[in-house]
Amino acid sequence: MALIVMKFGGTSMAGAERIHNVATRVKAAVEAGHQIAVVVSAMAGETDRLIGFTREAAASGGSAIADRKEYDVVVAAGEQITSGLLAITLQAMGIKARSWLGWQLPVQTSSAHASARIESIDTRAILAAMASGEVAVVPGFQGLDSLGRVTTLGRGGSDTSAVALAAALKAERCDIYTDVDGVYTTDPRIVPRARKLPRITYEEMLELASVGAKVLQTRSVELAMKEKVRVQVLSSFSDAPGTMVEDEDSEMERELIAGVAYDRNEAKVTLVGVPDRPGVVAAIFGPLAAAAINVDMIVQNIGTGVGAGGEGHTDVTFTVPRAQLPLSLDVLERARADIKHRDVLSDPAVAKVSVVGVGMRSHAGVAVTMFEALAARGINIQAITTSEIKISVIIAEEYVELAVRVLHTAYGLDAPETDLLEPVA
Amino acid sequence: MALIVMKFGGTSMAGAERIHNVATRVKAAVEAGHQIAVVVSAMAGETDRLIGFTREAAASGGSAIADRKEYDVVVAAGEQITSGLLAITLQAMGIKARSWLGWQLPVQTSSAHASARIESIDTRAILAAMASGEVAVVPGFQGLDSLGRVTTLGRGGSDTSAVALAAALKAERCDIYTDVDGVYTTDPRIVPRARKLPRITYEEMLELASVGAKVLQTRSVELAMKEKVRVQVLSSFSDAPGTMVEDEDSEMERELIAGVAYDRNEAKVTLVGVPDRPGVVAAIFGPLAAAAINVDMIVQNIGTGVGAGGEGHTDVTFTVPRAQLPLSLDVLERARADIKHRDVLSDPAVAKVSVVGVGMRSHAGVAVTMFEALAARGINIQAITTSEIKISVIIAEEYVELAVRVLHTAYGLDAPETDLLEPVA
Repeated sequence: MALIVMKFGGTSMAGAERIHNVATRVKAAVEAGHQIAVVVSAMAGETDRLIGFTREAAASGGSAIADRKEYDVVVAAGEQITSGLLAITLQAMGIKARSWLGWQLPVQTSSAHASARIESIDTRAILAAMASGEVAVVPGFQGLDSLGRVTTLGRGGSDTSAVALAAALKAERCDIYTDVDGVYTTDPRIVPRARKLPRITYEEMLELASVGAKVLQTRSVELAMKEKVRVQVLSSFSDAPGTMVEDEDSEMERELIAGVAYDRNEAKVTLVGVPDRPGVVAAIFGPLAAAAINVDMIVQNIGTGVGAGGEGHTDVTFTVPRAQLPLSLDVLERARADIKHRDVLSDPAVAKVSVVGVGMRSHAGVAVTMFEALAARGINIQAITTSEIKISVIIAEEYVELAVRVLHTAYGLDAPETDLLEPVA
Repeated sequence: MALIVMKFGGTSMAGAERIHNVATRVKAAVEAGHQIAVVVSAMAGETDRLIGFTREAAASGGSAIADRKEYDVVVAAGEQITSGLLAITLQAMGIKARSWLGWQLPVQTSSAHASARIESIDTRAILAAMASGEVAVVPGFQGLDSLGRVTTLGRGGSDTSAVALAAALKAERCDIYTDVDGVYTTDPRIVPRARKLPRITYEEMLELASVGAKVLQTRSVELAMKEKVRVQVLSSFSDAPGTMVEDEDSEMERELIAGVAYDRNEAKVTLVGVPDRPGVVAAIFGPLAAAAINVDMIVQNIGTGVGAGGEGHTDVTFTVPRAQLPLSLDVLERARADIKHRDVLSDPAVAKVSVVGVGMRSHAGVAVTMFEALAARGINIQAITTSEIKISVIIAEEYVELAVRVLHTAYGLDAPETDLLEPVA
């Protein structure tokens, strides 16, 4: 018997049949003797519908942007609806349940409307109700600020709501049901022998999310790490065990590399012949930041050329989101007088491939394995960045599947042949 | 400069364009120097969509009825959404505005979920905001009970919310915008010379509603009468002046008859040869009430026949909603042993035609005018009931349009020929 927070996403809540499926899972957990709080998202598509309404309303009044406080009033309705519907379904199945809206608990947040941060959750009433055997259904994504106004946490905030509630309730764990059944060593669409990981550390999960493997909202993982909430990722459409995201100091048998991730959403820019003087990096990245362009990898090669004024020159290479490449080039052109670079080269057809694993902290040679494996297939590495537990390389996009497969094999992540039909848990 | 409550129904709130139309009306009122509170319904169709969800949720869990508390959580979302959208639109137009949800004011109600009654409205915060020039947008239909749960007032409750808010705010008047532009002397589809009434009393409005002229929710008129709130019915799609519903002791020039109404939704049942003994009426109407059949007119003719046991006999005629006729006949058949009637006659093709007016209190001969006018056209009266300010008759349904036209003329309600193209305000 444990206190467990279960969280269901929009796909799991889309319509009566799926809500019934959710209720059946909750019922099973209750009948196993657990105390259950359920955090729900709005029905898939509903939040977009409501946001569309707010845009139309603002536009009809002649404004590009809807008032944020009232935006929150509108979009919070989506989770209110699914909370009530799940409680209705549970009660119809003979399971005691009630909804607790953000303002009822309350879930106290900052006043940053549309992107509020949870400050505290008052759990007294809900704990008493749960102790009496009642399932608590809590809408994700919504809260109440100190002025008594409705707030929302921003897109994907329901994962964060679930982790915050699990922390406040001191739950045994937070089970996040989604449309994948766990975290894989890599994308099974590219590598059929990808394996589901039984466990992964918070840090690995964060690094994987940062390089394109979006299973959990990053904020929710950061919060889980800070609050030491054990998070399980599992599917609401199967009964397979999921992946436990937890602290490294749990007695888990560590693998060297947890997974291989990729991100096609990159474009590369190289500024050639940049004068090597103080302040030049700011002259490059200041205007890009001002234009809200999210620069990712930055590599600076100390050049050997000498410019007209006698200073040394260097080349600066960085990546930007592919959709922002034209804007980036435009910004750089306008900043040319300040940066004084000789030329700009760009390539929209690059991809980032990363290997992530806490094991690399204590193992030498992890990077060498990567470089050798790619070189053996003739894949040219255009840029490299590393963090404590991640190595990322930029390569030509056409090699991305090959690179992922090669690295998956090189780090010994492939499932045994015999398990091909059913991924090993 | 006055404090005015404006209420807009679901048709007026259906989509960005119509909400913008509403906001334009509100803006004009603000710019005329008034303090404005707006009460809004959910978008047309939205409440039905949400109720549909609750039914599906209950059914999927194996229950015919959704938990009432959670039903309220779900359906209250409809007005929450439109409140936020109207506030967004107003702000985009440069008009200060904010939404005040039922739990934020709060609108304190009973705990009768799905049919709660408003007990009080805390107006301190909203009055301060309005005094500062801010429009207050209040979702109709919803409230908060003493246990802190969301409640709703039942279908059409937004009219009641508006009147209750107008009473609490001591508003100059409550303008109810709807899809008709006022209260007419009768249905203009039947009588082209029907006139829009500039004024009508609460009592007349209630009696007209009770006989099928549904312009305002009956509860809202009762509340307006009790709280002496002046209610104006007007169209959100035209600029024509509407009808003021107010107290009789306003200095209005009284007409004898305010209007002629009809209701096709009637069926007639006659029990023939009912033993004329104590308790027989209870034996008839007890089972009907137990089956939730809403009996309307009841006429008992003292018969002259003598039964087998020597008692007198009588015939009892009454009307029921047409859709409930088969159920009614079934209930009466099962109660036959108790009632001991000789026969049952029924007629689904009857209609009720009524004339309503406070003037009939002080004028004799109002009923005679009705009977003579119908007789002159050969329309047979099958049953008659009267209240202090209303006379209703049951006739064959095929005569209903003729009867309405004849009575409209007989009571001098026809508009002058010259005004035919545009109803007189």
